[in-house]
Amino acid sequence: MKELEERIIAQARVYPDHIIRMDSFLDHQLDIGLLDRIGAEFFRIFSGRGINKIVTVEASGIAYACMTARYFDVPVVFAKKAKGDSIEGGLYQAETYSYSYNGGPTLLIAKERLTARDTVLVIDDLLAKGDTLHSLLEILSYAGAKVAGVGVVVEKGFQEGGRLLRQEGVDLHSLAIIDQAEERNIRFRHTSEGQ
Amino acid sequence: MKELEERIIAQARVYPDHIIRMDSFLDHQLDIGLLDRIGAEFFRIFSGRGINKIVTVEASGIAYACMTARYFDVPVVFAKKAKGDSIEGGLYQAETYSYSYNGGPTLLIAKERLTARDTVLVIDDLLAKGDTLHSLLEILSYAGAKVAGVGVVVEKGFQEGGRLLRQEGVDLHSLAIIDQAEERNIRFRHTSEGQ
Repeated sequence: MKELEERIIAQARVYPDHIIRMDSFLDHQLDIGLLDRIGAEFFRIFSGRGINKIVTVEASGIAYACMTARYFDVPVVFAKKAKGDSIEGGLYQAETYSYSYNGGPTLLIAKERLTARDTVLVIDDLLAKGDTLHSLLEILSYAGAKVAGVGVVVEKGFQEGGRLLRQEGVDLHSLAIIDQAEERNIRFRHTSEGQ
Repeated sequence: MKELEERIIAQARVYPDHIIRMDSFLDHQLDIGLLDRIGAEFFRIFSGRGINKIVTVEASGIAYACMTARYFDVPVVFAKKAKGDSIEGGLYQAETYSYSYNGGPTLLIAKERLTARDTVLVIDDLLAKGDTLHSLLEILSYAGAKVAGVGVVVEKGFQEGGRLLRQEGVDLHSLAIIDQAEERNIRFRHTSEGQ
C-alpha cells in the first residue's frame, strides 16, 4: 500500500535492534484517515470470502479491526491477554479458549464468541516473530472457525513470522513489508506475494 | 442514547456484585454499526468546541475513540498501561507522562503526543470508580492540554466515579447511566445532566 509505505518513510523512527517506532501515526497516536484507508484496503483484498467476523488481539489491533469491520459490516472480536496468573476473574475459566505460543502472553477468547459456523478475517497491526498470530490461529482452530485470511498492516520481513505463516499455508497479506530497517534507510519488499 | 439502552436491556448480563457484562456487543465482541452510531452521538454532543484530538486508554476505549475520531476527523491518542515495573523498555522514560491514581494501573503517554496547544475530547467505554479517568485527566493537566469534555459509553451510576468527576467540574456526558443493575432489572438514569 503506497500511501502506507510513504508515511513510514516519512515518519517512522528506527532504533537499535531494528526497533521501528511509528508512534505518530500508526501506534499510540493514530491517523484516523490513514486507518480508514487501511480498512478499505483490507476490504478490497479480502472481500467475497464469506467473512462474518473480524478477529484481532488487544490492544493495538483493535483500531485496524474496527476500521476494516466497518467496510465488511461484521462484528469485531478481540482476544484479551491474561493478566498474571488468573484468567479474567475465574468467572469464565470453563468458558474460554486460551493459548500461549512459545511462552508469549496467554490469549483468551470466550467460547461463545467463536464457533465452527464462523469465517473470520484475522487483522493485526504488526508481525514480527509471529507468536501472537500463531496463538490466535491456534484458538481459532479450537473453535473450529474457518480462517479466510490474515491481514497485517506492517510486517518486519527480516523476522521469521511472515515466512513461517506463509509456509504453513496461511493466506497472509501485509500492507507493507519492511525488509531492511536502518536509521536512514527503510527498504520495502515488493513482490506479488502478500501484497 | 435510546438504542444503547435498549441493547443493554436486551443483551447485558448482570452478575453478583453488580458486574455487568456486555461482551456480545460492547466489549470483547463489538457491534460495529452500534459503535459507529455511538461515535456519531459523541460528535453531536461535543462538536464545535475546537477539539483537535481524541484521547483514550487502551484497550477497550480504543474502538470508541476511533469511531468518534472519524466524525471529528482528528487523531486518536491512547494511553498505554505500564506492564510490570519497567516503562515501555526504558527508551521513553524521560519522555513520558505517567500517573497512577489510587493505586490503579500506571498510565503512560509520550510527551510529544500532547501539548498545551491541544484541545482534547476524552472518550472511554466504562466509568465505575473513575480511577482510569482521573489518571488520564491528571496526565492531560501535566501536558497543559485543554479538556473540552469527557464522553463515556456506559456509566455505572451506583458507583462514585461520575459523581466525583461532575463535582470536580468535568463536562462529563455518558450515553447510558445505569443506576440499578440486578439480574432481571436494569434501570437507567434519565436527567438533563450528562445525557
